[in-house]
Amino acid sequence: MKAVRLFGYNEPVRLVDVPEPKIEGPFDVIVKIAGAGVCRTDLHIIEGIWREALGDPKLPYTIGHENAGYVEEVGSAVTGLRKGDPVILHPLNSCGFCLACRAGNDMHCVDARFPGLDGTDGGYAEYLKTSARSVIKLAPGTDPAPLAPFADAGITAYHAVKKIAPLTYPGSVAVVIGIGGLGHFAVQLLRAMTTARVVAVDTQPERLDVARELGADHTVPAGDDGGVRGVLDYTGGAGADVVLDFVGEHGTPEKALRMLRKGGTYSIVGYGGVVAPTTLEMINRELNIVGNLVGTYNDLVELMELNRQGKVTIRSQTFPLAEAQAVLEELNAGRIIGRAVLVP
Amino acid sequence: MKAVRLFGYNEPVRLVDVPEPKIEGPFDVIVKIAGAGVCRTDLHIIEGIWREALGDPKLPYTIGHENAGYVEEVGSAVTGLRKGDPVILHPLNSCGFCLACRAGNDMHCVDARFPGLDGTDGGYAEYLKTSARSVIKLAPGTDPAPLAPFADAGITAYHAVKKIAPLTYPGSVAVVIGIGGLGHFAVQLLRAMTTARVVAVDTQPERLDVARELGADHTVPAGDDGGVRGVLDYTGGAGADVVLDFVGEHGTPEKALRMLRKGGTYSIVGYGGVVAPTTLEMINRELNIVGNLVGTYNDLVELMELNRQGKVTIRSQTFPLAEAQAVLEELNAGRIIGRAVLVP
Amino acid sequence: MKAVRLFGYNEPVRLVDVPEPKIEGPFDVIVKIAGAGVCRTDLHIIEGIWREALGDPKLPYTIGHENAGYVEEVGSAVTGLRKGDPVILHPLNSCGFCLACRAGNDMHCVDARFPGLDGTDGGYAEYLKTSARSVIKLAPGTDPAPLAPFADAGITAYHAVKKIAPLTYPGSVAVVIGIGGLGHFAVQLLRAMTTARVVAVDTQPERLDVARELGADHTVPAGDDGGVRGVLDYTGGAGADVVLDFVGEHGTPEKALRMLRKGGTYSIVGYGGVVAPTTLEMINRELNIVGNLVGTYNDLVELMELNRQGKVTIRSQTFPLAEAQAVLEELNAGRIIGRAVLVP
Amino acid sequence: MKAVRLFGYNEPVRLVDVPEPKIEGPFDVIVKIAGAGVCRTDLHIIEGIWREALGDPKLPYTIGHENAGYVEEVGSAVTGLRKGDPVILHPLNSCGFCLACRAGNDMHCVDARFPGLDGTDGGYAEYLKTSARSVIKLAPGTDPAPLAPFADAGITAYHAVKKIAPLTYPGSVAVVIGIGGLGHFAVQLLRAMTTARVVAVDTQPERLDVARELGADHTVPAGDDGGVRGVLDYTGGAGADVVLDFVGEHGTPEKALRMLRKGGTYSIVGYGGVVAPTTLEMINRELNIVGNLVGTYNDLVELMELNRQGKVTIRSQTFPLAEAQAVLEELNAGRIIGRAVLVP
Repeated sequence: MKAVRLFGYNEPVRLVDVPEPKIEGPFDVIVKIAGAGVCRTDLHIIEGIWREALGDPKLPYTIGHENAGYVEEVGSAVTGLRKGDPVILHPLNSCGFCLACRAGNDMHCVDARFPGLDGTDGGYAEYLKTSARSVIKLAPGTDPAPLAPFADAGITAYHAVKKIAPLTYPGSVAVVIGIGGLGHFAVQLLRAMTTARVVAVDTQPERLDVARELGADHTVPAGDDGGVRGVLDYTGGAGADVVLDFVGEHGTPEKALRMLRKGGTYSIVGYGGVVAPTTLEMINRELNIVGNLVGTYNDLVELMELNRQGKVTIRSQTFPLAEAQAVLEELNAGRIIGRAVLVP
Repeated sequence: MKAVRLFGYNEPVRLVDVPEPKIEGPFDVIVKIAGAGVCRTDLHIIEGIWREALGDPKLPYTIGHENAGYVEEVGSAVTGLRKGDPVILHPLNSCGFCLACRAGNDMHCVDARFPGLDGTDGGYAEYLKTSARSVIKLAPGTDPAPLAPFADAGITAYHAVKKIAPLTYPGSVAVVIGIGGLGHFAVQLLRAMTTARVVAVDTQPERLDVARELGADHTVPAGDDGGVRGVLDYTGGAGADVVLDFVGEHGTPEKALRMLRKGGTYSIVGYGGVVAPTTLEMINRELNIVGNLVGTYNDLVELMELNRQGKVTIRSQTFPLAEAQAVLEELNAGRIIGRAVLVP
Repeated sequence: MKAVRLFGYNEPVRLVDVPEPKIEGPFDVIVKIAGAGVCRTDLHIIEGIWREALGDPKLPYTIGHENAGYVEEVGSAVTGLRKGDPVILHPLNSCGFCLACRAGNDMHCVDARFPGLDGTDGGYAEYLKTSARSVIKLAPGTDPAPLAPFADAGITAYHAVKKIAPLTYPGSVAVVIGIGGLGHFAVQLLRAMTTARVVAVDTQPERLDVARELGADHTVPAGDDGGVRGVLDYTGGAGADVVLDFVGEHGTPEKALRMLRKGGTYSIVGYGGVVAPTTLEMINRELNIVGNLVGTYNDLVELMELNRQGKVTIRSQTFPLAEAQAVLEELNAGRIIGRAVLVP
Repeated sequence: MKAVRLFGYNEPVRLVDVPEPKIEGPFDVIVKIAGAGVCRTDLHIIEGIWREALGDPKLPYTIGHENAGYVEEVGSAVTGLRKGDPVILHPLNSCGFCLACRAGNDMHCVDARFPGLDGTDGGYAEYLKTSARSVIKLAPGTDPAPLAPFADAGITAYHAVKKIAPLTYPGSVAVVIGIGGLGHFAVQLLRAMTTARVVAVDTQPERLDVARELGADHTVPAGDDGGVRGVLDYTGGAGADVVLDFVGEHGTPEKALRMLRKGGTYSIVGYGGVVAPTTLEMINRELNIVGNLVGTYNDLVELMELNRQGKVTIRSQTFPLAEAQAVLEELNAGRIIGRAVLVP
């Protein structure tokens, strides 16, 4: 089958022929990919900045960690799934036995695989092997392809918003920095899941337009000061209760901290930079900083329910799998609005 | 009366004669000071590092923000307090009307005064004027002098431990960095309020002895690596669930982050340095960083109850008020074990 | 001035002349009443079922605990309020000094007064004396009269919904029993504050119509079985996550418990009946039952913000103060849709 | 092998010969029973009061749901367990795939088996078949027999205490009604996991002695009024923050509610009676009632850690398996102090 693989860091990925995956364990599931989302993390993988954190995975492997499609074949112990069922896949294959899995913290599973990231083959391909623990059935008749970005961009935004939702209340203010693939979900999720007033910050006017269409109460051009003045003005000088940062580099962490009110929380999703407050600032204003990994299986189930109800929609463009490298370059150039999906 | 006042930054404080405070408002309370705790924050005030954060207070003023004594006189609207009642004082004079006060977040009161810190006269003196909202009555017959350090060192440690307590469970590990005035409370509070195993880290062996006596399950000399290796070894390589840092400078923040397990929380109380993780580290290990200000009035009530039950004791040494400058110098040199109290 | 007073239990209330209230304490505030909501609790007061719980208040007194109007005069220590400011009043006069007040639990204040309920004169009158701690300023130019029902019906519904909100998630189901004055707020609040699907249950078709207009996802006529079958069918037999009961009598508690799923929560606001599960049922299905009193000052601030944003509207009809007795009879007969407001 | 089986409701159980269980699925585990706890629920099963709730299980079957022993044999997919490992067993065999399992709520698994309760053979036998998801390894060299009661009595008490722990604070009061098998754990758990003052209530003086030895701050003989007066006196008339009821019949629910302070919580573990407050009482005092089922796998891991640390000990007496019927009769007569364990 065709698959897009990483052969070397800081090199273009390549479309090549590889053998189809096979059922080996009782809980294995083979999925025929309908759509695979293109994520900024793919860029970071190719740059090698995940290399050490992931234990230097063996190359080449197939990337793509945001996958949806149809059940093709299931292992002997799998129940409730049949060939042709439309499905979306939780990005992790968690073990189900460790204390983290049993506590509902899939993302801290001590024995997980992360297809498309850690050297396990991902979904920029015609078929993907995953585990029954990772499969979420969609309603019969659903077209899974355009939904693929929910599997990672969506679930990560959902996880981050769910964590800060208890900090909001009517009259509170939540800022979203970066209205790209994840940020455009976050604006909608804040509207659906909290009573906070939502402020969107971005450098590009057309992205602020998208934010307004998706329900932002206020928008602030990032400008010279990263939007700090605009947020402080909107909050009467007090600052925001929560800042969700989907950029995490180019100085946004420092700006985000300045946007916060006393007791406020800076929630990091985008990455690449450094966050460097003084300990005096952290204690004097009693600030919080929260890192966010991908969400849980149940998070993705809940997110798909919000999508089914029409409360969270997706802006995606599809491209042929063979154009993967070109699409990655477009993403890097900031020219994708919403989310790109590769279709085999 | 005699009072110890700050006349200039980076200068010795001086014992001088000042007029006694007078009742002016209906909720004013004059307290005859029995003991005033000496705090690292006094050193930081004198160094001027709080100057900007506090709005450049007018000098001179009387320092001392950790006070206990006896009711001397009360305003016309004060009920339930009589001359001679032994009392301990919440360090803030909060307004009681703002949304933060009404939500129980005294430390974020929008109209508070902080005697001894913000230019309002503090407790290194014979008498102190405070507000009825700040007074906690002690049991009849209690000697308030040795309890003074609960009013700031104690309440701050209590507030920080209470915030992380929900993150602990049997088998979890909480690290305390710095077994000084606040740290020696934190070790006891973790024992009383959580089921975590408590690990104490300090550079001085005698402080680690104190930690063990107060109930630490394990101690780690800070050594060359700040104790990182010792904590990782104790946790089988996984890292600690929580690290409470009562130093906050000299590289402890960087060490504290390395001690954490996935999903762990770094709680900052001590200050002076910088904490500077990459955003990648924050998201990949899904870390949290929490700043801590002083606790609430109710926090101090609860802490005094723990003290009454014998679950949290204090190690304090008393000195004459006239020796304030010398005691501050001892503290700066790291030669105070437990907490110093000035007695007028 | 004119006031409607309770002279005896199970007797009609009477419009009589009484002296106007006067400023006595430094935090007193006199409000010129613009509107006073008529509440089922007024009926219960007249029936005497609150008599014992309230310590047998001395008769006669002016009823009316749901009040809005304009500041008329303020005590010497009151800041931030001026004659003519439009205001809505928190129904309790809490002390601000007890542990409950300091923890943000106004409704458990140990030294509160409840005008209109406990023998303190309420708002079925031209003027009302309250405390600065109870006054919430509305935006300049607001007409307070139609907003009065937010002061008790609204805040109580808000308090109840806020308490169960953390139990909901996308896909969960929240049932509202009784779409009267409080219930019509609850439907809107569940929409604004949670991601639950909202199911309304009532005996009257026109009230179910109101529920749908206000955003209910599904409606169930109470019918013979109190709506149990309809709720179980809607949830595929599993039952609802939460049932909010604004009736609390005529068998609704027993029906509400049968509507719940395993681990579900029955939240009681309406009262008059008995809830009587077996302990086996409570443990085998791991059920929860939650009673709800009025909300806090901050709850009312937050609710007025939701109203300002248009997320929670009120359906109210106004009547002259002189018609109080007739309006109470209409309410008792179930002929008021939304909420009735008396205007002096 | 020998097994004690239920042949008919309200009949003595009988020791008979049955075939040994066999490995059938990949995650099956056969455990050689070292000890099986005797529980009041066994009495209730025999009385038939669980019959309907459990779907009328087919008789006969082997009872015993509180089991510990040694691994005998494991299925093909089981990792980390070897013959001879000492283990304690979570009482449920949960599926690991449903939303409840994935959220960490094993006890609400939609596809669970409950050996010893629902017709699946339990542990009053020489061998028991369970699932790898139910097995907790004990430290090498541990004698599992006396620990068996942790598997149900312990975990249920732990689950109940963990749920109310966030409601306690220094100065709060938690009452334990019934110092039997579960209650003697609850007293210790409240000491280890909360800062509440612990009050034990029982009809038998020797059980109150046990409570004091295990750390209760105060004891109250149940007497004529079920201990209500004693609890109110101890709390200065205010009432307790939490009442944990391990009896749940003979009038304790009504007494428990009267012991509560405003905003207090009544937590039910024992069962057999009815709890029947008026809705007025529930709302006027803003009470909560919480039902408790067995805890989760992680709860049992945490509890065994507390036992390993010496913070929760067990009082158990062992009897030969053949005496099962006689031991059940002793338990019914209230003559077992602590917990009885059957040894094959």
